Amino acid sequence: MDKLTELSYSLDTFYFLMSGVLVMWMAAGFAMLEAGLVRAKNTTEILTKNVALFAIACVMYLLMGYQLMYPVEAVNSFWPGFGFLLKDENTKEAVLASNGETYYSTLADFFFQVVFVATAMSIVSGAVAERMKLWAFLLFSVVLTGFIYPLQGFWKWGGGFLHESGFLDFAGSGVVHLCGASAALAGVLLLGPRRGKYGLNGVINPIPGCNMPLATLGTFILWMGWFGFNGGSELKISDIGEANSVAMVFVNTNLAAAGGVIAALLTAYLLYGKADLSMTLNGALAGLVSITAEPLTPAPILATVIGAVGGVLVVFAIIFMDKVKIDDPVGAISVHGVCGIWGLLAVCLSNPESTLKAQLLGLVTILGFVFITSFITWLIIKTVFGIRVSEEDEYNGVDLSECGMEAYPEFTVEGSKH
Amino acid sequence: MDKLTELSYSLDTFYFLMSGVLVMWMAAGFAMLEAGLVRAKNTTEILTKNVALFAIACVMYLLMGYQLMYPVEAVNSFWPGFGFLLKDENTKEAVLASNGETYYSTLADFFFQVVFVATAMSIVSGAVAERMKLWAFLLFSVVLTGFIYPLQGFWKWGGGFLHESGFLDFAGSGVVHLCGASAALAGVLLLGPRRGKYGLNGVINPIPGCNMPLATLGTFILWMGWFGFNGGSELKISDIGEANSVAMVFVNTNLAAAGGVIAALLTAYLLYGKADLSMTLNGALAGLVSITAEPLTPAPILATVIGAVGGVLVVFAIIFMDKVKIDDPVGAISVHGVCGIWGLLAVCLSNPESTLKAQLLGLVTILGFVFITSFITWLIIKTVFGIRVSEEDEYNGVDLSECGMEAYPEFTVEGSKH
Amino acid sequence: MDKLTELSYSLDTFYFLMSGVLVMWMAAGFAMLEAGLVRAKNTTEILTKNVALFAIACVMYLLMGYQLMYPVEAVNSFWPGFGFLLKDENTKEAVLASNGETYYSTLADFFFQVVFVATAMSIVSGAVAERMKLWAFLLFSVVLTGFIYPLQGFWKWGGGFLHESGFLDFAGSGVVHLCGASAALAGVLLLGPRRGKYGLNGVINPIPGCNMPLATLGTFILWMGWFGFNGGSELKISDIGEANSVAMVFVNTNLAAAGGVIAALLTAYLLYGKADLSMTLNGALAGLVSITAEPLTPAPILATVIGAVGGVLVVFAIIFMDKVKIDDPVGAISVHGVCGIWGLLAVCLSNPESTLKAQLLGLVTILGFVFITSFITWLIIKTVFGIRVSEEDEYNGVDLSECGMEAYPEFTVEGSKH
Repeated sequence: MDKLTELSYSLDTFYFLMSGVLVMWMAAGFAMLEAGLVRAKNTTEILTKNVALFAIACVMYLLMGYQLMYPVEAVNSFWPGFGFLLKDENTKEAVLASNGETYYSTLADFFFQVVFVATAMSIVSGAVAERMKLWAFLLFSVVLTGFIYPLQGFWKWGGGFLHESGFLDFAGSGVVHLCGASAALAGVLLLGPRRGKYGLNGVINPIPGCNMPLATLGTFILWMGWFGFNGGSELKISDIGEANSVAMVFVNTNLAAAGGVIAALLTAYLLYGKADLSMTLNGALAGLVSITAEPLTPAPILATVIGAVGGVLVVFAIIFMDKVKIDDPVGAISVHGVCGIWGLLAVCLSNPESTLKAQLLGLVTILGFVFITSFITWLIIKTVFGIRVSEEDEYNGVDLSECGMEAYPEFTVEGSKH
Repeated sequence: MDKLTELSYSLDTFYFLMSGVLVMWMAAGFAMLEAGLVRAKNTTEILTKNVALFAIACVMYLLMGYQLMYPVEAVNSFWPGFGFLLKDENTKEAVLASNGETYYSTLADFFFQVVFVATAMSIVSGAVAERMKLWAFLLFSVVLTGFIYPLQGFWKWGGGFLHESGFLDFAGSGVVHLCGASAALAGVLLLGPRRGKYGLNGVINPIPGCNMPLATLGTFILWMGWFGFNGGSELKISDIGEANSVAMVFVNTNLAAAGGVIAALLTAYLLYGKADLSMTLNGALAGLVSITAEPLTPAPILATVIGAVGGVLVVFAIIFMDKVKIDDPVGAISVHGVCGIWGLLAVCLSNPESTLKAQLLGLVTILGFVFITSFITWLIIKTVFGIRVSEEDEYNGVDLSECGMEAYPEFTVEGSKH
Repeated sequence: MDKLTELSYSLDTFYFLMSGVLVMWMAAGFAMLEAGLVRAKNTTEILTKNVALFAIACVMYLLMGYQLMYPVEAVNSFWPGFGFLLKDENTKEAVLASNGETYYSTLADFFFQVVFVATAMSIVSGAVAERMKLWAFLLFSVVLTGFIYPLQGFWKWGGGFLHESGFLDFAGSGVVHLCGASAALAGVLLLGPRRGKYGLNGVINPIPGCNMPLATLGTFILWMGWFGFNGGSELKISDIGEANSVAMVFVNTNLAAAGGVIAALLTAYLLYGKADLSMTLNGALAGLVSITAEPLTPAPILATVIGAVGGVLVVFAIIFMDKVKIDDPVGAISVHGVCGIWGLLAVCLSNPESTLKAQLLGLVTILGFVFITSFITWLIIKTVFGIRVSEEDEYNGVDLSECGMEAYPEFTVEGSKH
């Protein structure tokens, strides 16, 4: 039956690669979402950041991250040790000799994992938009993707102490989304709000995004890519049980997003009397983040409800952030942080193997570790190079100061100079 | 050979899920196409509608539609009866015991089917753009996706009387596209044309779309997604014959779109002396809709011709609609209705099992049933809540009245106030 | 084991079809990239060209190209002879009798190949943007996709003399990218630069693209599609060795793009002191083109370096082209030509079966043959119909003269009239 094992290996590898392509596509989703939600004068810069961070994430994860996160032999359950550059030793002989334990290409696994790192980093770029220095951001992305992300990732997915504690996080509400949001929060706190966002006497000035079709496109791209993100995290599809599981993950992922959309649309309507598109888009993402920690065990109707709760949460979280003057232009901390936490807790609603204690341990560990290490990293960068552009550059837009190029040079831009 | 059956099941399930992802992506295609073809002042609202209708379609199809369309045991061939919420009983034992009859996950089937419902509903949103109340539209989408679509879908794909009559509709020129177009036509007739579209003495004022790159992107997305739409409708890929069939469907789908593009481009050029991009894009979609009822049996060259005829038809259909003052801002009724009908008839060109009688029966049934039930639904909504925004709101754009948010707040908008 | 052979055939066919879908998607990538990098007044026309050329490529390749490139029996290794229309004779019996030689559907192969032709032609459209007559371009696309591309493709991939010489070109740095760039160069030389691009005393006037989010989206789409382009070119995935190879191709393709991004970003920063988004995007594409001739044998770190060298090369190539007044609005000749050449030579860095001599033979043959035949074709079209729009039409934008339709009719357009 060797040929059968080979075919099975091929199918699982192909499934991994296709899932990876879908997750890679999420990089475009974040780029479009963020470009749509900032002002025209800051668009080129956020696009540049999104392209560059993806490239940096891929190279840093090759050089450092993958070995750190998935060590051949870990030193202990807190520190994986350093390994060396990627190599694939999955020869035919090795695979067949493994009796089915090695069931897909290591390289396919690397490809799938590397696009996850980039996702975590993409979350940060939106939150610090419109006022951060480009090179400070890219420097931080080197540290997050090469060290911070892989280390906490090792604790869960690499078999470290969070895994041993029984902490459950199927596709990364915590490891990816809460991680990204925690790093973003640290950056935003050190960076401060955009000029003019918060006025006297608690006045909050809305700064609308300049291109809503782009933001909508980005959301649809992320929704699509999430089928790879969650669907691929089952890691195997080549028998009936696994195939059914992957299908369940697809169904639940889709329904959680749908639930998030409807809940956010209605919540915003009840609050504002309008069908608020930004909130609706964030509702979709909120639903997706919420189901990511456990998209397999809930029944479809429960998945819809978990997403819907995320959709309600995100609306109030965005309002709350503005109340406490944490200026997050795209709502990334609310979507990925608040709903990431909700997703980790919601595991207990359907997975009998979960414990609230382990979920809280994971949650606190990721939030704490990523926030603190990110804060220190941002602080060092701030002290050495500075992280915020000058007042004049912010007024004129970071596109000119950082990239020397306008995003829409021919369209008359109104009102972006505030 | 159990392991072989398992692998086969996994491959078919994976093929279904990937096809479903491509069809889900069509939601983004419709959103971009429609956002590109309306005026700037009505863009946020059409984006909101597209995101919300997709979410509603998913939830309604979970709650009602799937059980109605694919009942475990139908009451009779006209009325399926009501079933209950989705569950997956495809355990390993059940699948193996079925002797190959159960060859993919029910959940994967649900995922594939649910994105079809959303497609049908997306067709409607373009036709009623720029003047309909958002909530009236969403209310209608509840009825269409929960009841009207599944019931006529049951008649064909669920094994009802259209199926028994020999009516052939491979991937839904009728069940999906004509269905959507019929519902749209009913809505447009009750809604009336946009203000200023039709002047005195038969003058037709063109209202150009505000963002042609978006419309082009939407068309490419739909073209891509159609490989899942038609390719996945073969339902199986795990043996040589089926794999060859799926490949043929891909080739023919692509060539029909190509034929539609060339034919529409040339037709519009002969009529207007210009290479009309809107017509060219509609030509691609026309070709795709035309081949959808039978993408398997035509030789590739015939598929190209079937698409090309669709491309010619759509140009004249769009002109005709304006003549009779049916105002359809994106040409949805022409693309999906007229070419849907052509597609159903074109089955007879290549499939020896088809009969013109059965095709006409299917065509008349779907058109009649969906038009009448939709008309009644729209009429009730109109009577109770109203379906059209006020004159002032239409003048200022539905973005402000319905969503409280501009799509392009920084770009000076010229000439949209007519 | 017949059933096993069938399943293997199905998996390889499915892998081919999914790869083809990803390559087809690149058509949207080129359309968005080019639409983003031209001025607003020339956007509708370049969109029309991109949609129409894809359709023409598909039909011409069906009618002529596929038979020319992959003849059932070639006349000799220089001239394939003419075959007839596509047919699929891969019946179950034939496949099983082939003892594994026929391992995927011919139709799936056609689908995969046809989207490659369109890619080659897409490269041309960017280089001749903003001043060429639409119909002259489409006429040329008939010749390139029906004759020029397939003939040189036959020499390598169809088993012709370049293949026999030991020339290696995995996925087409030469056959596709250098081919497209050579055809573009011939066109640009006959067409001349855009008015106002080059002033007196060597002044070069930058003409910035009007929509950078679109250009970024296009780059991400191309990056995504390249996984099908390179990944599918392994042609088989159904055993352990092939699955590992496909995974390696994915990893290397991704890392080469990442290397290209980082290198181009840093190079442009060192030259201009700004993070230049256009150059960064071209860096990604440069990395992708550079790895396309050999994405399998380099170690991941070498793939990153090959891409990075491409990223540096493209920046200097773009500067050089402007120095010698070859006006290429999107940098297509630099990206696909210069990096295509680099990619062909870089094969020798990792593949022990390559020889510099054979690589140079392939390079010179493709460049020479395609440039000369394209030049003659463009010259004939120029003589008979003209290839350049009038001065007035160029000033007002080709959208109005060629398509009769603006791309952004409501956005005030500033500064595009120069």
